[in-house]
Amino acid sequence: MPYVTVKMLEGRTEEQKQALVEKVTDAVVETTGATKEKVVVFIEDMPKNHYAVGGKRLSDQ
Amino acid sequence: MPYVTVKMLEGRTEEQKQALVEKVTDAVVETTGATKEKVVVFIEDMPKNHYAVGGKRLSDQ
Amino acid sequence: MPYVTVKMLEGRTEEQKQALVEKVTDAVVETTGATKEKVVVFIEDMPKNHYAVGGKRLSDQ
Amino acid sequence: MPYVTVKMLEGRTEEQKQALVEKVTDAVVETTGATKEKVVVFIEDMPKNHYAVGGKRLSDQ
Amino acid sequence: MPYVTVKMLEGRTEEQKQALVEKVTDAVVETTGATKEKVVVFIEDMPKNHYAVGGKRLSDQ
Amino acid sequence: MPYVTVKMLEGRTEEQKQALVEKVTDAVVETTGATKEKVVVFIEDMPKNHYAVGGKRLSDQ
Repeated sequence: MPYVTVKMLEGRTEEQKQALVEKVTDAVVETTGATKEKVVVFIEDMPKNHYAVGGKRLSDQ
Repeated sequence: MPYVTVKMLEGRTEEQKQALVEKVTDAVVETTGATKEKVVVFIEDMPKNHYAVGGKRLSDQ
Repeated sequence: MPYVTVKMLEGRTEEQKQALVEKVTDAVVETTGATKEKVVVFIEDMPKNHYAVGGKRLSDQ
Repeated sequence: MPYVTVKMLEGRTEEQKQALVEKVTDAVVETTGATKEKVVVFIEDMPKNHYAVGGKRLSDQ
Repeated sequence: MPYVTVKMLEGRTEEQKQALVEKVTDAVVETTGATKEKVVVFIEDMPKNHYAVGGKRLSDQ
Repeated sequence: MPYVTVKMLEGRTEEQKQALVEKVTDAVVETTGATKEKVVVFIEDMPKNHYAVGGKRLSDQ
């Protein structure tokens, strides 16, 4: 606890995901006082045909 | 905003998903007064072995 | 099935929520071929201090 | 209703998932008084590179 | 891990919620081989005006 | 995009939540290359009787 979910378009590299998880965890620890080992981060990849803004999917643009 | 998530069994065609996203966005705009460009829709596909009703997965029926 | 979640800022009236649920359900039925009685809609209200864009909460603007 | 989501590391067998869904459904029926046919269970698999504790992904350990 | 979310209509008693959490945790441990102390359960209450089946909210029936 | 959800025990102050949202947004921008104005953060408060580890709710400890 806290539990953080980051939902983003697929395509980020493993290096980016590793850095994301580290920096987000640090940001949570610094601002909430949570113990680092208790912070959990989930990443969710979205494909372009499953994400739409204004009624239009990214895969249709 | 609003953010809409539609979770459904995998297997719909790209045409169905495209239409789904358009019509759902219109429905949200019409009833909530949100600006169209602000409406976000996410689609989540469920495989049959990850979805159960009454203790039985669809893949086991 | 499908399961639809609509996350939006709190403050919509009951009439708006009722209409939202009806129209979104119709849109899902029309485009996915799902049976109307199987479509489930969840509404989630967000307070302004729990929603941020660009690092700024709506309650801080 | 109720709607139960079980998020876990990928790798469980079909037999484990089938048993999981049955036992969790029974537990929900027994304790909430819900009708068995109304209980819905979703399974979500997490890959090791999308799950981190303490700022470290399982795939990096 | 695993992480279980149970979404249900508001109104269950504290005794029901306590029993729910215990039994669901046992079911997960028994079927997945997870260590008991690692199983996390979240409960989410839904008000009747935020839940609809077939385009009709429970509060409108 | 990305969309970040932070789920944590209720009780943090407005100052903590404001700082959380700022720092997490910065961490996401820095590591994913996303444009700052596109990063969305949702906070979800959990009450102690709706969160359990090892079959025991925090409110029962």
